[in-house]
Amino acid sequence: MEQLKESVCRANAELPAYGLVTFTWGNVSGFDKESGLMVIKPSGVPYEELKPEQMVVLDLDGNVVEGDLRPSSDTPTHLVLYRAFPGIGGIVHTHSPWATIWSQAGQGIPALGTTHGDYFYGTIPCTRPMTAEEIRGAYEHETGNVIVETFRGIDPKAVPGVLVYSHAPFAWGKNPMDALHNAVVLEEVAKMAYHTRQLNGGIPSMQQELLDKHYLRKHGANAYYGQPGKEH
Amino acid sequence: MEQLKESVCRANAELPAYGLVTFTWGNVSGFDKESGLMVIKPSGVPYEELKPEQMVVLDLDGNVVEGDLRPSSDTPTHLVLYRAFPGIGGIVHTHSPWATIWSQAGQGIPALGTTHGDYFYGTIPCTRPMTAEEIRGAYEHETGNVIVETFRGIDPKAVPGVLVYSHAPFAWGKNPMDALHNAVVLEEVAKMAYHTRQLNGGIPSMQQELLDKHYLRKHGANAYYGQPGKEH
Amino acid sequence: MEQLKESVCRANAELPAYGLVTFTWGNVSGFDKESGLMVIKPSGVPYEELKPEQMVVLDLDGNVVEGDLRPSSDTPTHLVLYRAFPGIGGIVHTHSPWATIWSQAGQGIPALGTTHGDYFYGTIPCTRPMTAEEIRGAYEHETGNVIVETFRGIDPKAVPGVLVYSHAPFAWGKNPMDALHNAVVLEEVAKMAYHTRQLNGGIPSMQQELLDKHYLRKHGANAYYGQPGKEH
Amino acid sequence: MEQLKESVCRANAELPAYGLVTFTWGNVSGFDKESGLMVIKPSGVPYEELKPEQMVVLDLDGNVVEGDLRPSSDTPTHLVLYRAFPGIGGIVHTHSPWATIWSQAGQGIPALGTTHGDYFYGTIPCTRPMTAEEIRGAYEHETGNVIVETFRGIDPKAVPGVLVYSHAPFAWGKNPMDALHNAVVLEEVAKMAYHTRQLNGGIPSMQQELLDKHYLRKHGANAYYGQPGKEH
Repeated sequence: MEQLKESVCRANAELPAYGLVTFTWGNVSGFDKESGLMVIKPSGVPYEELKPEQMVVLDLDGNVVEGDLRPSSDTPTHLVLYRAFPGIGGIVHTHSPWATIWSQAGQGIPALGTTHGDYFYGTIPCTRPMTAEEIRGAYEHETGNVIVETFRGIDPKAVPGVLVYSHAPFAWGKNPMDALHNAVVLEEVAKMAYHTRQLNGGIPSMQQELLDKHYLRKHGANAYYGQPGKEH
Repeated sequence: MEQLKESVCRANAELPAYGLVTFTWGNVSGFDKESGLMVIKPSGVPYEELKPEQMVVLDLDGNVVEGDLRPSSDTPTHLVLYRAFPGIGGIVHTHSPWATIWSQAGQGIPALGTTHGDYFYGTIPCTRPMTAEEIRGAYEHETGNVIVETFRGIDPKAVPGVLVYSHAPFAWGKNPMDALHNAVVLEEVAKMAYHTRQLNGGIPSMQQELLDKHYLRKHGANAYYGQPGKEH
Repeated sequence: MEQLKESVCRANAELPAYGLVTFTWGNVSGFDKESGLMVIKPSGVPYEELKPEQMVVLDLDGNVVEGDLRPSSDTPTHLVLYRAFPGIGGIVHTHSPWATIWSQAGQGIPALGTTHGDYFYGTIPCTRPMTAEEIRGAYEHETGNVIVETFRGIDPKAVPGVLVYSHAPFAWGKNPMDALHNAVVLEEVAKMAYHTRQLNGGIPSMQQELLDKHYLRKHGANAYYGQPGKEH
Repeated sequence: MEQLKESVCRANAELPAYGLVTFTWGNVSGFDKESGLMVIKPSGVPYEELKPEQMVVLDLDGNVVEGDLRPSSDTPTHLVLYRAFPGIGGIVHTHSPWATIWSQAGQGIPALGTTHGDYFYGTIPCTRPMTAEEIRGAYEHETGNVIVETFRGIDPKAVPGVLVYSHAPFAWGKNPMDALHNAVVLEEVAKMAYHTRQLNGGIPSMQQELLDKHYLRKHGANAYYGQPGKEH
């Protein structure tokens, strides 16, 4: 648990270095499968002041188990995702500009090249607009629900990110640092896809064979990228 | 008053760090309600050389009360805004590029997502073009007047910024640092709104329920963002 | 002359800090009216290695008066401009991206807002395409000639910059640092004008009254920007 | 060989400083004509940790001659290019954003100005889409083949770079640092060409005379840019 707090704290602290956040517009959490506990950033605290002992620990029902500060206001969204997506060990939420632009446009990011295909096995989807009831109700909880609904028929491990309509992206991964890695990639492919479509509006998604090739040479049983036995 | 000079000086000095200014293209002022005095940057002095004792102090009729240097040439605009918008304690004027682009296009920035809604409760308006008489007359004073005219029917506390037609943005807040915060957000939402509209020209403003939700969870009596009892 | 060498060297060295150059794609020169001599960067030397004693001194006929290194390959263009534009004491040539984009598009930069009007009193013109004969002949000299031709009817002091068709910008000023200042402004207004036109293709040039107001409050006999008796 | 390892290591280490890579998305190799051996970055190792002794040495048949780590997964592409393009001594592959955008759009970068013409003697071509067989087969090897096919009728020394369809750029040069230089230029001209076409969609490629002039004043027997006897 102390290790997870350190890792969540470090991943939060790295958000500004990757250009993913302005002020405190982002949060990272981590999930420990054994204990069933989630660790998340406290709300509204600047990244450069964060210390591991300030991280807030909650069970998946949202009860605070440890920590004096109020957890991130997006906590209920994180909880829904950990409950629905087994195997996920870290979640990053930011308002990183390029991914947010696609969210605001209400469009998923098509797989237009191998950079995308190396990490996301197909379109990064955008949720449907939330209903007035969902927004007025348990809004952050319902945000989680609409993400889960969007992933019916999509494996969240193969497409580790989503755009929330009129809002901003969430990305996830095996652990907090892996989720941060995917959030950085999501921002980069969002930027490149935007400009690709401006340059050539008619360009379709990449060939399925090329997507298969790139995704599977980095992921799965026959991966051959990086050094053997090492994560990449 | 010394504290306000320090705060105005610091907010001016932070303009370059946030990428809001080139050369000396921006100025921050602060207003002290008790004494009825305004503190503002001297004209044409580089930010890195600014010292609190160089700040110019004026009453709201524009009489210099303290300071050896000439105040910013935009001083009359600041004076009009402090007189017209009660409760405002800081004003920032810059030519930050994305907000200036919307000003030059003569268009207000629509609320296209929650980043906008967290700070600005609706469209950030653009003023009408000024008349030849207004421009040839007391130009900087009239710039203030046209801003005030634009806010007929809009609460300046809920929409703490404006675009001046063919010119550039002004933002304001409870104090100089809060105004600077809003100027940074204005620039960021201007950038994202521009690209959102390029990607999907037909996207309308965000749902009113979502705007209500985001603005009100950070502002007003029932806010639940950040730590209790802390400004955010 | 030593002072001018220092100033030319420093202005060259500052090109990378302002984001105006990649590798050695730019050069600054200065002109000393009394002696009738020009000082310019040597060709192909990296900015961070430049020393004042490496600057090359030439008379306006292009004879090298001092210096062991070959002068910038654009030297003949600088010479033509100093001969044709009296009162100019510094010239900057770069391939700064936004100004180069307008040059490549073959379009002058219209005055779309007060940032432009504070420094350039009207459209920043783009030259006509050069003829095959001009290109095959004394190319760099002819580049100067086509710039001078473009300024028939335009005061080069009031519009201190130009775009060379299919090439890149030149800017000038009272001295090398003033020319550098104008080159930075040219790049910034090029960036903002590009995006303004993408956002609102039909927006015309700014009102003449507003252009007059902004240009003349910083320049000319009745200027009231900055501190009295100080350059700004 | 030790010198080549140092040079390949240094060129790899400089990729992030030039903004060409995110994470480990790029690799540089070098080729030693005398020994017929290639030196390349190991796969998946962060640039800041790279040491010359980690570089992998292979012959042009792809046999590892020296090195404990697995070579870059793009190694077969590099091998094909060294075999097909005599005189090439360094290759850089990145996913630099602007060049990748043109790759994803499936379009070559037209020569729109002198910045392009100073380094690339004509359009930087984009390969055709690879067939399903090529992708499913020896993919990285076939990537090299499709590049070579694209250069039928084009001199790879005069156009030292290519865009791979739906993928990303490769650039090359006389040695690893020269290849890096060309990769930086490719990215810059990709950025400027994109915006030029957005601003003026109908602008054709630059005049042939101007392209000749700029390319040949820097390259070939009569070059007169830079200092005599120095590479530039």
